[in-house]
Amino acid sequence: MLPAPHFSAFNPPRRILMGPGPSDVYPEVLAAQARPTVGHLDPLFVAMMDELKSLIQYAFQTKNEMTMAVSAPGSAGMETCFVNLVEPGEKVIVCRNGVFGERMRQNVERVGAIAVLVDNEWGTPVDPAAVEAALKANPDAKFLAFVHAETSTGALSDAKTLCALAKQYGCLSIVDAVTSLGGVELRVDEWGIDAIYSGSQKCLSCVPGLSPVSFSSAAVEKLKNRKTPVQSWFLDQSLVMAYWTSAGGKRSYHHTAPVNALYALHESLRLLAAEGLENAWKRHQDMHLVLRAGLEKLGLKFVVAEDSRLPQLNAIYIPEGVDDAAVRARLLKDYNLEIGAGLGALAGKAWRIGLMGFGARRENVALCLRALEEVLN
Amino acid sequence: MLPAPHFSAFNPPRRILMGPGPSDVYPEVLAAQARPTVGHLDPLFVAMMDELKSLIQYAFQTKNEMTMAVSAPGSAGMETCFVNLVEPGEKVIVCRNGVFGERMRQNVERVGAIAVLVDNEWGTPVDPAAVEAALKANPDAKFLAFVHAETSTGALSDAKTLCALAKQYGCLSIVDAVTSLGGVELRVDEWGIDAIYSGSQKCLSCVPGLSPVSFSSAAVEKLKNRKTPVQSWFLDQSLVMAYWTSAGGKRSYHHTAPVNALYALHESLRLLAAEGLENAWKRHQDMHLVLRAGLEKLGLKFVVAEDSRLPQLNAIYIPEGVDDAAVRARLLKDYNLEIGAGLGALAGKAWRIGLMGFGARRENVALCLRALEEVLN
Repeated sequence: MLPAPHFSAFNPPRRILMGPGPSDVYPEVLAAQARPTVGHLDPLFVAMMDELKSLIQYAFQTKNEMTMAVSAPGSAGMETCFVNLVEPGEKVIVCRNGVFGERMRQNVERVGAIAVLVDNEWGTPVDPAAVEAALKANPDAKFLAFVHAETSTGALSDAKTLCALAKQYGCLSIVDAVTSLGGVELRVDEWGIDAIYSGSQKCLSCVPGLSPVSFSSAAVEKLKNRKTPVQSWFLDQSLVMAYWTSAGGKRSYHHTAPVNALYALHESLRLLAAEGLENAWKRHQDMHLVLRAGLEKLGLKFVVAEDSRLPQLNAIYIPEGVDDAAVRARLLKDYNLEIGAGLGALAGKAWRIGLMGFGARRENVALCLRALEEVLN
Repeated sequence: MLPAPHFSAFNPPRRILMGPGPSDVYPEVLAAQARPTVGHLDPLFVAMMDELKSLIQYAFQTKNEMTMAVSAPGSAGMETCFVNLVEPGEKVIVCRNGVFGERMRQNVERVGAIAVLVDNEWGTPVDPAAVEAALKANPDAKFLAFVHAETSTGALSDAKTLCALAKQYGCLSIVDAVTSLGGVELRVDEWGIDAIYSGSQKCLSCVPGLSPVSFSSAAVEKLKNRKTPVQSWFLDQSLVMAYWTSAGGKRSYHHTAPVNALYALHESLRLLAAEGLENAWKRHQDMHLVLRAGLEKLGLKFVVAEDSRLPQLNAIYIPEGVDDAAVRARLLKDYNLEIGAGLGALAGKAWRIGLMGFGARRENVALCLRALEEVLN
């Protein structure tokens, strides 16, 4: 026998999470998650799943029947959209203005489809004119894919305009709402979004590990009319929905649901519904303005121009001569405060300060500003 | 705006979980999971992940470097093995003696590979002679895939012999250990298993949602020498391992880890290591014998012959004239006791009584026997 390792129980400190996610989790969510595990086919549990579905529909502002939580993180939500909808050889216009647009391209290519790239500079939003040009130049394109809120830069793109363009040119839209859901205005039905995915660990302030997803009826049609099987068994929504829908009161087992994580998501969405989406959007904006004023007083500059800045993800340039890693390490060590490093093209050049969900509150902003002031001076 | 739904917090009862999983979760695991969320790149968290990796290695009895937990349930662990190792057009011998062997076939076909089926009757183990005949008849086969412990029937197959056969005929072995890990003898290195996956929610008594996976160096070689990219971005182990390995102290972000679920897995494996694997195997066997004696007294018959019966999953025939659903509903309602329904070919014909992990203890066995006696009479 290989010997047994002996470790102590892991007792993490109480960090204040102001990076790009995971965000500060609601205490109620941590408590919900610790409730006793029940079976994934227990009638009480499936009744909770019905509630959860309507809570996800509310957060997305959709009546889409095919609405659920993928049993894995946001990147699996992204993959769910691409593998279910896009078939080999099909053309997808992919907008790339940060890390996650690039990840979309990789998803498109891994299903054997063709990505037509619309590149915009990091830190800027997706340019609708460039998208329209690509749609015109590619009349055979079947999809337009873009990131609503780029977590790597803090830029907000105009999802409403982009989805209207997709519709105008006969494309289905695939939208990354990992960082936008719950933090800024997002209206799936009104804007005509066809496939959307998010993550539990950003503005929903739930634990990481789940990805809310919703497909419009046009997306469901596309899925139903596939000529090839979905390449992923685990993410095949035609199978998964047999579990997420009570067809005649009966649910079919697909995989064992992450029961306790779903308790957590139910609780976080319940808190969001109790606050009201519009109130939550306003709170994120209000806290962003307080943070912005303080950061500007410290002489820090934003990466993204004001008109497309995300309130919930504030990317700021690291001042010259300042040691990136040392500052973040000191914030973590001395203040238990996590802010995010730059990612991709912004690695070493920017910090990302998240104000997400439960994290978007006065005491977090005040702590962050004071700690930055102390550490930078 | 679509209106906000208003629901109460979900407060599940304390069920006694004696189905095919999720199993009774250790109270310590539920508590661990509720600890404060920290960032997935927090130095304290990545130190915990190093411990977690060595705990998974211990549970699998392996020194494999590529050992980690997939951030999704067991079915995603299965898919991880197939999409990373098997390339389109390759031949895989798939042993099918229950639901999960059939799922392996679907995985093989969804990567565009060829499944050669070795069928054994439900409730019986995989027959090594039939496997050897298939290996002989298919000298171009690259893999042998089988389920160690069939959750749908309760049959244990001889993984040691099957893996030796795979090696003898130049195949890599892919082993489903979802229900076996922690419950019966399993020695990855000694038996020469090349790729193995399990689930958190069976004999590890952790919450559902994670899948421990391990690849031998031969499997890693196969992955490195692929001619085609792995079709799943989310499950691509060459990317994931950049996060699970501290190369020069640096970990690369791949996706946001399910932080709290990993706390839970760390705690459950820590408890397993403290008990000792061999003690855990013995405890499962001991409890099975107590349960068996009681079930036989009630006149109930096992689906699986004694020599290949899993201690942790006891499939018994439903007595004639007994209403399957009504009995299970009464056990759940009156005793808070969950036992499992039959699956696939055994639906409506058998019950599955799980004795998994923390669930394999005297008080559970006693309750189950007494409750069955009361409900059946």
